[in-house]
Amino acid sequence: MPTNAPTVADLDEKSLLALIFPRLGPDTALLGPGDDAAVIAAPDSRTVISIDTLVQDADFRLEWPSGYRTTGFDVGWKCVAQNVSDIRAMGAVPTSLVVSLTLPGSTEVKWVEDLADGLAAAISSLASERCSVVGGDLGRGNQIVVTAAVTGDLEGRAPVLRSGARPGNVLAHIGALGVAAGGLAVLESRFHMTDLEGTDDQELAGLAVAQCRPRLPPTGAGPAAAVAGATAMLDVSDGLVRDAGRIARASGVGIDFDADYLRTQAVSLAPAAARLGADPLAWVLGGGEDHGLLATFPVNAVLPEGFVRIGKVIAGEGVTFGGAVPPATGWDHFAG
Amino acid sequence: MPTNAPTVADLDEKSLLALIFPRLGPDTALLGPGDDAAVIAAPDSRTVISIDTLVQDADFRLEWPSGYRTTGFDVGWKCVAQNVSDIRAMGAVPTSLVVSLTLPGSTEVKWVEDLADGLAAAISSLASERCSVVGGDLGRGNQIVVTAAVTGDLEGRAPVLRSGARPGNVLAHIGALGVAAGGLAVLESRFHMTDLEGTDDQELAGLAVAQCRPRLPPTGAGPAAAVAGATAMLDVSDGLVRDAGRIARASGVGIDFDADYLRTQAVSLAPAAARLGADPLAWVLGGGEDHGLLATFPVNAVLPEGFVRIGKVIAGEGVTFGGAVPPATGWDHFAG
Repeated sequence: MPTNAPTVADLDEKSLLALIFPRLGPDTALLGPGDDAAVIAAPDSRTVISIDTLVQDADFRLEWPSGYRTTGFDVGWKCVAQNVSDIRAMGAVPTSLVVSLTLPGSTEVKWVEDLADGLAAAISSLASERCSVVGGDLGRGNQIVVTAAVTGDLEGRAPVLRSGARPGNVLAHIGALGVAAGGLAVLESRFHMTDLEGTDDQELAGLAVAQCRPRLPPTGAGPAAAVAGATAMLDVSDGLVRDAGRIARASGVGIDFDADYLRTQAVSLAPAAARLGADPLAWVLGGGEDHGLLATFPVNAVLPEGFVRIGKVIAGEGVTFGGAVPPATGWDHFAG
Repeated sequence: MPTNAPTVADLDEKSLLALIFPRLGPDTALLGPGDDAAVIAAPDSRTVISIDTLVQDADFRLEWPSGYRTTGFDVGWKCVAQNVSDIRAMGAVPTSLVVSLTLPGSTEVKWVEDLADGLAAAISSLASERCSVVGGDLGRGNQIVVTAAVTGDLEGRAPVLRSGARPGNVLAHIGALGVAAGGLAVLESRFHMTDLEGTDDQELAGLAVAQCRPRLPPTGAGPAAAVAGATAMLDVSDGLVRDAGRIARASGVGIDFDADYLRTQAVSLAPAAARLGADPLAWVLGGGEDHGLLATFPVNAVLPEGFVRIGKVIAGEGVTFGGAVPPATGWDHFAG
């Protein structure tokens, strides 16, 4: 590691902002960064809003047991991914982010520039050309904390809540299942991994990429679900069983997973899991951070492209797995 | 200090949220907390948005040299104050906050409940009955970090930017000047202060209150300035000279302060400053965090109630003090 690379302690706020903002891509706001606040368009007179934070050593390690060093790009990408996923899960389209960075003085300027590049790349890939970073805040702390608030546009539609699932509805999912959890296991393992793309072990590297730079379902998946009549929807951030439990609780229903289908999903992860001594079904059922969308639809609805039926809504309460107790649950980001 | 008081390490996220949300007061959103995102009204099809963070040991100390222990209420109050002030400075009315809390496991549950009370009290006092906390995020970290994003409604008006000041405009201010800086000096001093209200030394305590729980100008001051034709406006968060310099730079003008008036302001702080060995004029010119509003108006405008003329906009660049170099500047929250 270079020890004389410039760090944020060498710069004042204005100088660091001057390095960050040009990397963030075109400004899409009515009034963008640089004033006390930004102004964004809200064409249907409503704004969807959410907030999410990444904390060093809680949500990512700067250096993992595998040797991989989390880049600023990874953190910027993941910040956008987890935030826009919450907007999509309402059936909305992301329209802006405001980002607050808390940085130790020892953070290399290059790492922060990479973070800006990761924000921009993820907005371009995962949000839309309508979305940009419209404001921010910079401060000092003893660990890296990246918080973004994200806004969205419902385009005139009703938001899709967690509370509308009804017995008889189909439970459907779009996105990865268990892949980010597998990536976490890779990063926490002793498999040597100094970078994500260049490693010889493509299978394990692919999982680690999914953890560090989650790919989301296509941008239009959330709105398409809303248009198709989704009765409930959420972003799978804390694990399939745990997040399905949230729909069940909010809707006053039970949810039964298609055990055969989910076991099939686990099969594709089995070789990697075996190398890591892990249970692939636990990744599928309990792993968070894949940021797929879990939705319920009327039984006669045509599922939007990419959504797969993975269970059904039943009368009662709680979550079952082919009628039985699920063999794995999920993740509490706070309790750890 | 009790050592066996419950801490956040004893609770999962759901249990802690169940303690926080009931303390936050009535929900004013179209869709409030509990789903992936909230939905707020944007009556004029625009939303103003900003983000601001408080970090332990950078923006506040849990225990100050004076002995004062920052309460959760203080941090919740200050989080709201600094955020809504940015919305007011655009001439808008605050409509919602989303709040992210990063907490060490050792944080007492009571401290977090106090923080929720501080958020609610400050929203009630400083925002409006239209505003509430509509969402949030909880996570673990090794120091307390509180981030809020705040939204606002321009009520059909144009936002008041920093860039519209013109030579000949009047420079006017509403709010405290140097008081929060005086409070910081009190807290950093060896004057014994275990609480804010109960201390015998009311003069110094009053300053400390302004630092810990800033009072802002009346809620309507920002919108009133917009209606009165303010050509530029900002929130004085980093010091009068520094923030005036931002208007000067954005507008391509110079700003000259009324030195006599500002010296008079310093006189009222002189007794406290003498006790602390400080220069009261440095507090007035360089102290941040008072969160008054600094605005420029056409020379024939009727200043809204509470605004006081403190200088003028001139051709040129930079900030002068009665035509001379200002004897103090301001605060860079990042460089410290």
